[in-house]
Amino acid sequence: VQLTAGQYTTGSLILMVSYGAHFAFILFFLMMSLQLAPRYRIVPVLSAVVMASAGLSLLREFSLWQASYELVDGIYRPLAENQSFTNAFRYGNWTITVPILLTQLAIAFGISRPDLHKRVLRMIVPALLMIWTGLYGQFGETGDWSRLNLWGVISTVFFVWLIVEVRGVITLGVANSPAELKGWPKNIWWYFLATWGLYPIGYALPQLGFTGDVVVVRQLLFSIADISSKLIYGIILSRYVLRRSALEG
Amino acid sequence: VQLTAGQYTTGSLILMVSYGAHFAFILFFLMMSLQLAPRYRIVPVLSAVVMASAGLSLLREFSLWQASYELVDGIYRPLAENQSFTNAFRYGNWTITVPILLTQLAIAFGISRPDLHKRVLRMIVPALLMIWTGLYGQFGETGDWSRLNLWGVISTVFFVWLIVEVRGVITLGVANSPAELKGWPKNIWWYFLATWGLYPIGYALPQLGFTGDVVVVRQLLFSIADISSKLIYGIILSRYVLRRSALEG
Ligand SMILES: CC1=C(/C=C/C(C)=C/C=C/C(C)=C/C=O)C(C)(C)CCC1
Ligand SMILES: CC1=C(/C=C/C(C)=C/C=C/C(C)=C/C=O)C(C)(C)CCC1
Repeated sequence: VQLTAGQYTTGSLILMVSYGAHFAFILFFLMMSLQLAPRYRIVPVLSAVVMASAGLSLLREFSLWQASYELVDGIYRPLAENQSFTNAFRYGNWTITVPILLTQLAIAFGISRPDLHKRVLRMIVPALLMIWTGLYGQFGETGDWSRLNLWGVISTVFFVWLIVEVRGVITLGVANSPAELKGWPKNIWWYFLATWGLYPIGYALPQLGFTGDVVVVRQLLFSIADISSKLIYGIILSRYVLRRSALEG
Repeated sequence: VQLTAGQYTTGSLILMVSYGAHFAFILFFLMMSLQLAPRYRIVPVLSAVVMASAGLSLLREFSLWQASYELVDGIYRPLAENQSFTNAFRYGNWTITVPILLTQLAIAFGISRPDLHKRVLRMIVPALLMIWTGLYGQFGETGDWSRLNLWGVISTVFFVWLIVEVRGVITLGVANSPAELKGWPKNIWWYFLATWGLYPIGYALPQLGFTGDVVVVRQLLFSIADISSKLIYGIILSRYVLRRSALEG
């Protein structure tokens, strides 16, 4: 797809803001961890790890964006002779970050040892199957809609399974939370559905047509999803465990 | 070997996930060390060093992958005039990381001073001989099977010697562990065999033929081995010394 100068710059800008935000918040989460009771410190530390990992992946997407287009007569043309732009790196990165985000949730809700391992495993299995089937399907985004849709549906089945497991952890979270904080897990549940739900929309988007606007809107959607499901999510969980630390003394 | 676009992207993706994961976990191990009794802090700190070193080496492999192929008519062709892709950097990196991983093991198991130095030295000597004979042999991977196999066998002899030494350290670890944790060294022993055992498989793989799939599967195998034998191994050892710190007060 050819991009206008405006579209090309907007795309670069979105990716730049995303990687910048993720890298910068490493510092926030590291310092945050020092404020907490030792048992909860791991929650913001894991957010810092997620920030670093996602930041590197988004920096890679940014470089790839820069390397994939060439300015000819005021239009940015894809450099076919060179490598071409792909979102596949994002899926690779989710393989690291998604298991960490789910582990964080179970630790923040104070689920303890043997049960913790079981619950985390039961969330990670459908999550990885969802990501890898989606990765396989996304190679169809260049026009093979039956591949994109078939694997998208398979991936969605795993997503539904994951949602059921997360719901179970939320229920435990409500049970474990001090009385003043019982509202938090419920709100986190809705937040989880709203933010993770953006990814399948981004996945399906290319079917709207091969236009520059679709390419750019897709980056925007993925970036909003990334910042919400990792960065803001990390802040919410950190504040929740900060309150818990204070209440539990 | 020529690669399809799917194979090329999958290879880049595997290398990107590996270097991203290693870099991101530097933060985890540094913060983890603050939670421990002072005598065990060095264990996660060494993991952080291994993460940095392996991350840099994998970033190098990633750049080399990008620089070694050229997209011509939808196929990624090796750029013969330029440098070609090699796994040799991995062996260089092992020269740094393997001695650290072995030292970590002996420290985590609470082996103390004069005996510690002796045990560590007895593991490092066969380990380095294993790596350097393997490095010499791997230059035969472009088709000189007798070189690959001869030096592979010599390297395996050193690997067996190393396994014997590690077994000795595990036995000391069982003896030194508090009663509640005696199961850990035994499990670490099996984990060590399973994860280090992946490397010779990756070494021998080119003999299955010069196909794009073999090239990509090999990167996948090495990356799984790297993440297991360094990153997850580091998490396991850190958790073991965290428990020891708590029990020993
Ligand atoms: C349902 C569905 C998908 C869901 C993806 C999700 C839910 C991704 C979440 C990613 C996160 C939270 C990353 C944070 O680092 C795919 C794979 C796009 C494929 C199409 C169907
Ligand atoms: C037996 C054998 C090998 C073993 C390699 C091993 C066991 C490497 C371990 C590396 C680690 C743990 C790196 C971590 O950074 C070689 C050299 C491939 C050559 C073929 C025979």
